[in-house]
Amino acid sequence: MNREDPQLLGVTSQQGEVGAAGTARQEDARGQSSGRSIEEYLARALLDSLGNPPISLTLWNGKTVYVGQSKPAVDVRVKSRSCLVKLLLNPELYFGDAYSDGLVEVDGDLVKLVEVAYQGLARARSAGLWSRVIKWLNRRNTNALAESRENIHHHYDLGNEFYKLWLDRQLVYTCAYFASPDITLEQAQIAKMDHVCRKIRLRPEESVVEAGCGWGALALHMATQYGARVKAFNISHEQIAYAKARARALGIEHRVEFIEDDYRNASGRFDAFMSVGMLEHVGPEYYPELRRVIDRCLDPNGRGLLHSIGRNRPNPLNAWVEKRIFPGAYPPSLREMLEVLEDWDYSVLDVENLRLHYALTLKHWLQRFENSSGKVKEMYDERFLRAWRLYLAGSIAAFSNGDMQLFQVLFARGANNDIPWTRGHLYS
Amino acid sequence: MNREDPQLLGVTSQQGEVGAAGTARQEDARGQSSGRSIEEYLARALLDSLGNPPISLTLWNGKTVYVGQSKPAVDVRVKSRSCLVKLLLNPELYFGDAYSDGLVEVDGDLVKLVEVAYQGLARARSAGLWSRVIKWLNRRNTNALAESRENIHHHYDLGNEFYKLWLDRQLVYTCAYFASPDITLEQAQIAKMDHVCRKIRLRPEESVVEAGCGWGALALHMATQYGARVKAFNISHEQIAYAKARARALGIEHRVEFIEDDYRNASGRFDAFMSVGMLEHVGPEYYPELRRVIDRCLDPNGRGLLHSIGRNRPNPLNAWVEKRIFPGAYPPSLREMLEVLEDWDYSVLDVENLRLHYALTLKHWLQRFENSSGKVKEMYDERFLRAWRLYLAGSIAAFSNGDMQLFQVLFARGANNDIPWTRGHLYS
Repeated sequence: MNREDPQLLGVTSQQGEVGAAGTARQEDARGQSSGRSIEEYLARALLDSLGNPPISLTLWNGKTVYVGQSKPAVDVRVKSRSCLVKLLLNPELYFGDAYSDGLVEVDGDLVKLVEVAYQGLARARSAGLWSRVIKWLNRRNTNALAESRENIHHHYDLGNEFYKLWLDRQLVYTCAYFASPDITLEQAQIAKMDHVCRKIRLRPEESVVEAGCGWGALALHMATQYGARVKAFNISHEQIAYAKARARALGIEHRVEFIEDDYRNASGRFDAFMSVGMLEHVGPEYYPELRRVIDRCLDPNGRGLLHSIGRNRPNPLNAWVEKRIFPGAYPPSLREMLEVLEDWDYSVLDVENLRLHYALTLKHWLQRFENSSGKVKEMYDERFLRAWRLYLAGSIAAFSNGDMQLFQVLFARGANNDIPWTRGHLYS
Repeated sequence: MNREDPQLLGVTSQQGEVGAAGTARQEDARGQSSGRSIEEYLARALLDSLGNPPISLTLWNGKTVYVGQSKPAVDVRVKSRSCLVKLLLNPELYFGDAYSDGLVEVDGDLVKLVEVAYQGLARARSAGLWSRVIKWLNRRNTNALAESRENIHHHYDLGNEFYKLWLDRQLVYTCAYFASPDITLEQAQIAKMDHVCRKIRLRPEESVVEAGCGWGALALHMATQYGARVKAFNISHEQIAYAKARARALGIEHRVEFIEDDYRNASGRFDAFMSVGMLEHVGPEYYPELRRVIDRCLDPNGRGLLHSIGRNRPNPLNAWVEKRIFPGAYPPSLREMLEVLEDWDYSVLDVENLRLHYALTLKHWLQRFENSSGKVKEMYDERFLRAWRLYLAGSIAAFSNGDMQLFQVLFARGANNDIPWTRGHLYS
């Protein structure tokens, strides 16, 4: 078999034979198929294991390897042999670390890189073995009560000052709702808060329990804009302190109670249960517990809303993101989400998938983050800056590619007939 | 224990002790607890097994039995002891037959009767045993290819003339969409067709495969109102013949092809997959087959819509409806519906629950049916008339009570980014 035969482009890679990505090219040694080095074979194997995406790899010795006839727009510079070997063993996990540590550099669009790598991985995974290996490598942590405090602190107690650099003014760290794609992030976060309040048809003097309230923007919005009385739970000390200060400043501590505690310790009965961006931090093994909390807290005529990152199919979170950015996180499939509700007599009224809205939200965040990259580096270090840049860019790619979803699930008790007749009120 | 103690109202019934419904009263023999006959005990046991709903039972001997202090608004006259015994053994199955045969008569609102019986049953079921017994009694039929032809003929080949008596002018035999509750049934069926066409964002010259097309109204609507080219499948001979005649009359046979065949035999690639009111006739064991058909038929940028009767939790259809009206039918829970999509890379974009719309649709149908009851009796017989009256009334109750749901699930392939930004276009 002539390994340079153009007709074989992208074909031999499907045989899954390591080192047999015969279509890979090498700029310095084109046509000299007999002179291939071990590192060149490793680079080709890496591209092959990634489904041969349109990416070139430039090695520490200056050689550039890629698949196809012309050099792709995105080049990844791999600075050492050990880095190449680690990437080959577990690209999803190690790429993030290597990028953070500056052991790989990306020339070209970082979002584009992750996008084509995701697409390639999906192709490679459909072969089967890779999928199982990735799953094994991605074995999840658990989220027992004590543990979830640690997991949350890891991410959310990085310091309010850090998030102030690149979130909107109200520090809403969940998918925004762009009623139109050209509104500002500030407007889109307010639109999202209005969207969920309208979905649960929040009325004056109604009581709401909010599970996982972040820096409190939604709780405050429900109180100030809808006249609701809110009990909002969060186990992140810094976030609750910030939220309490905002409530005091607004003079509405009597309407919004911020509680530094696990939502599972909520008590009382409420007209609405609201949870925006928490379910992805609740492992599926704890869904029955969440269900019991909802059932205990929700009035017979109550409505509930679960807003969560999700997947089309059950799949673990990207290994690196799970390890370095969001320990213990698991975005459920819609069917898995429904496990929270189905064993009890809840009626799902409305599900909306806002995937593209999250891609756009993340683009805003990344842009603001880059605008503050100097400050981020000052506050932390280069490694932190690069890790977060990759996380935000990778998340844009994941939502753009359809690898991640954003589900809003509206529900009520089965016998509740005080439900909206249509969804027209959301759009008037 | 004083069996007549008013403080025990509705309490002893929860002990599940047959004949111990000590709170039941008897008009003729109030206070004479020693003089109770066997039929009175049976009547009390029946009420108890139904969760003691606000219904009175008047027996063949003129005695009236009920639970509570005052006679309920709905009375069920049971005309023989054997009928009472059969009701006690399997009320869900036998009530329909007994009512159809005139062995029981209802004084009062039939819908109300079924509603309170459902509510009572739900209470009684939560005890556990009853639920298991009902499930056992409701063991489902299967829907192998040959069998589903028989099942469908049973219901849909009753004769177009019958359905013309009480459906809308276009013979749409699925849940309508009442953009406002006071529009006519005709308007609401057209609104439903527009609603699903807008959900899949149907564009001129796009191709649609429709699985289960009834009398063809939606297929014709998609062609005439949206400029689509449609292949519509149905295994009911009478319905297809009717649909073909309509297409000919409209001069659009070149745009709408009605095919008397199982949807599983569909071939070709389409911009949209549409199925309104068929999934409830597909047993869950055939969902993988449906999924393969969708996957085979849908373009990479295609959209799909599944509209089906459903449940909040997996539960068999009412035994009598399943036996006498819709053999082989099974309304899935939303999670079960998602089984059609989740194992492949489909993205659920939108789920809407139109339960209250189906209750209202059925109210229109029942009213028209009653207006034509003389004709129905003429075409068939009294038994048929009563069976269908009960089926329609019972269905109103089931959707009003939250026992049945109506889900519309919109989906696209995972990587398709040509999806609506918001759902605002459905409401403008």
